[in-house]
Amino acid sequence: MAKEKLPSRKENFSDWYNQIVLKAELADYAPVRGCMVVRPYGWALWENIQGGLDRRFKETGHVNAAFPLLIPKSFLEKEKEHVEGFSPELAVVTIGGGNVLEEPLIVRPTSETIIGYMYAKWIKSYRDLPVLINQWGNVVRWELRTKLFLRTLEFYWQEGHTAHETAEEAQEETRRMLDVYADFAINDAAVPVIQGVKSENEKFAGAIQSTTIEAMMGDTRALQSGTSHFLGQNFAKAFDIQYLDRNNELQYVWTTSWGLSTRFVGAIIMTHGDDQGLILPPKVAPIQVVIVPIHRDEAQKSAVMPVVDRVFAELKAAGIRLKVDDREQVSPGFKFNDWEMRGVPLRIEIGPKDVEKGSVALARRDIPGREGKSFVPQDGLAAAVAEMLTTIQAALLERATAFRDANIHDPKDYAELQEVVQDGWAFSWWCGDAACEAKVKEDTKASTRCIPYDQPGGSGKCIVCGKDANKKVYFARAY
Amino acid sequence: MAKEKLPSRKENFSDWYNQIVLKAELADYAPVRGCMVVRPYGWALWENIQGGLDRRFKETGHVNAAFPLLIPKSFLEKEKEHVEGFSPELAVVTIGGGNVLEEPLIVRPTSETIIGYMYAKWIKSYRDLPVLINQWGNVVRWELRTKLFLRTLEFYWQEGHTAHETAEEAQEETRRMLDVYADFAINDAAVPVIQGVKSENEKFAGAIQSTTIEAMMGDTRALQSGTSHFLGQNFAKAFDIQYLDRNNELQYVWTTSWGLSTRFVGAIIMTHGDDQGLILPPKVAPIQVVIVPIHRDEAQKSAVMPVVDRVFAELKAAGIRLKVDDREQVSPGFKFNDWEMRGVPLRIEIGPKDVEKGSVALARRDIPGREGKSFVPQDGLAAAVAEMLTTIQAALLERATAFRDANIHDPKDYAELQEVVQDGWAFSWWCGDAACEAKVKEDTKASTRCIPYDQPGGSGKCIVCGKDANKKVYFARAY
Repeated sequence: MAKEKLPSRKENFSDWYNQIVLKAELADYAPVRGCMVVRPYGWALWENIQGGLDRRFKETGHVNAAFPLLIPKSFLEKEKEHVEGFSPELAVVTIGGGNVLEEPLIVRPTSETIIGYMYAKWIKSYRDLPVLINQWGNVVRWELRTKLFLRTLEFYWQEGHTAHETAEEAQEETRRMLDVYADFAINDAAVPVIQGVKSENEKFAGAIQSTTIEAMMGDTRALQSGTSHFLGQNFAKAFDIQYLDRNNELQYVWTTSWGLSTRFVGAIIMTHGDDQGLILPPKVAPIQVVIVPIHRDEAQKSAVMPVVDRVFAELKAAGIRLKVDDREQVSPGFKFNDWEMRGVPLRIEIGPKDVEKGSVALARRDIPGREGKSFVPQDGLAAAVAEMLTTIQAALLERATAFRDANIHDPKDYAELQEVVQDGWAFSWWCGDAACEAKVKEDTKASTRCIPYDQPGGSGKCIVCGKDANKKVYFARAY
Repeated sequence: MAKEKLPSRKENFSDWYNQIVLKAELADYAPVRGCMVVRPYGWALWENIQGGLDRRFKETGHVNAAFPLLIPKSFLEKEKEHVEGFSPELAVVTIGGGNVLEEPLIVRPTSETIIGYMYAKWIKSYRDLPVLINQWGNVVRWELRTKLFLRTLEFYWQEGHTAHETAEEAQEETRRMLDVYADFAINDAAVPVIQGVKSENEKFAGAIQSTTIEAMMGDTRALQSGTSHFLGQNFAKAFDIQYLDRNNELQYVWTTSWGLSTRFVGAIIMTHGDDQGLILPPKVAPIQVVIVPIHRDEAQKSAVMPVVDRVFAELKAAGIRLKVDDREQVSPGFKFNDWEMRGVPLRIEIGPKDVEKGSVALARRDIPGREGKSFVPQDGLAAAVAEMLTTIQAALLERATAFRDANIHDPKDYAELQEVVQDGWAFSWWCGDAACEAKVKEDTKASTRCIPYDQPGGSGKCIVCGKDANKKVYFARAY
């Protein structure tokens, strides 16, 4: 329960974040280093994220399946860059059923390899293509510095793995799924993400090209919030995934993979939260509306509660996810704080005066105090609440977008870049040279986040070396 | 694709089962011994099972959460019977991030221990009780003899873990969730299960009492299809889960756990399937209806396809899960076999004559040949199809129940018991002595399946030793 205050976001954003996760009971530390327990409220939020994504995956022709958790060590070694990328992070099962295993098994850090093996078995002809499979599951990466939701040893995610006849189709799929992520992030989670391509240095181990949705958190740091990779024929060749093409010739397939994880819960917290706690966008909020009955004595209670029950029934019938907080042992004020901490988008207060007037009080979570409060008639309340939730959803996106745009800078030179990335992003011309990227990182800790699809056009001079550049890139410090 | 015939069920039930799983593309063997890949069609079936259960869990006040995959070895050792039960089956992570771990981590075989640890942290007062949490996830048990869905090293399940103030409440919960399983099994999966209590010898390692739903497969062998355990204070004491009661005194909580796994997919296959393949109950079928257009030339095709499209749109709008099989390279007959193999409950054929007459042909999967075929008008088709699906659902349950009842025997003496359990179940008086149970197992391979809640009353003589007995028990060979 939300008894103590949070540190303010300005004061200590990192501590604010950790405390919100614990106090809103989204997650807790597990007894294994770097692992988390996702508590029911946090998991309900993740289920809504899953729902929004899964619907979009199915609408774009994908199906779900489940591949094994344990991967033979030799599989990971088949794609050179892949094994180099993941080797330092592996959890290894060496004992099974009391015996030392002949070949150690890796707890999957991602499933390209084992899925590649199965695709080689299943795909024989162009008629079997495309294969469009997604998997919801858990993976383990032995991270050293961990943070609840953002980076944990075990995390939950979905990983899509597709195989195609041509490079073009696989590239289209890579982009399609990035668009799906962006659509979900912007329209369901109100997180205004920027879509673009990762630099060579920042791409997935084993990909030809990685694309990303990048979001700006409330401290202006960037969060890579979902990625979609064009894998070319790298895994097809490593796992011998071949098909007979329309001319009856053997060809390697072209593959993609794309993933979005429980890290996105962190994105929602750090995009929308304020010093009172979490603020959840209505579309993903486990509880969209909380009703707090207000009464001082039994007489008031018996006037108020029938109205509360009726309002609850009406809103529930309208498909609104809601809860009545009828706890007896705590005050309304305590309840207000408690649900503010948990980020419930809208509070309905119903007291004796409201009953008399045939109205209720609505309090928006995104606008604290009097300004966010309004009184509306009980008649037609379900429609008014639904509209208010839509308004809040839009307001959160608008606010986050304005914040992001206000913190993206166009530094005039390298000196100014070094300054602005301390508390914002730089959007600058870059020649594409890894040395320039590395210099920025060394000097400022800012990395290239993505070369966005949305480019101003034309060309300029690299902000680092001054050479000709035809793309602008975002530089930012990142989670 | 279903090109070759299955072995008949009579001939070789085990081989029939394995081939159905592979040919209907429910699952495939993974490259790790004893592990499976659940293919999209199998996973869609599991998603429907999940949906039916999850709705019931939420209706009975439960919430979902996620606890870690990796459990410190010492946790498992805290409950004596639990560790003895699970030790031979453990997969052990000994290396993480390139280093040998100080304490090995167990890939969870079940989560009582790590959840117990967290509950000790969260539960302080009777106000925190009951805790009613469920988890959907994967677990690993190092099984030696494996079979797709029925027994695999890694499997998917849900595990509910609840904590209560009193023994009575925990016992009620244990029974409530067994009832939820039975309700799902009978009403959604058309699997007529028997509810009862496991013998001491057959109970869960660490439970005071285990309860079960037992189903009879098509070869008369029993399948334990879901279990609900009253754990008493065993885990509360092992993990020190204490709360301040209403008199402000420290008490240990009472806990339960209950689980149902992808094994249930096996139950559905082996309850309903026939020599043509799978038969899926409409409520859990990924595809409830398949439409096969019938045309020999372009003229027929252009007459038929608009009707197919209209029927598809109407049924889809009515919430029916369906598919049009418009493959050009295969014949209608091939398609019929293919969808029969996959167990789609209802086939709609639309040909030129049907277009003329304004009707369609319906073919029930559960009644092969002419007898299962009917012609119905296109007008009002959605209602007719919905009704037919309800009829099929009921028919499957009826048939499975009749088969089960016909194969449960009441042997007059031990000699007859030994005979009947070779091809059926015995429902016999049992004194409760483990020695009698062991003797039956040794002589016949049949184990006690459960002491059903539904008892005839009165008393009798133990079928094995002849001593007084006041309960009847099911003896059967089991998976």
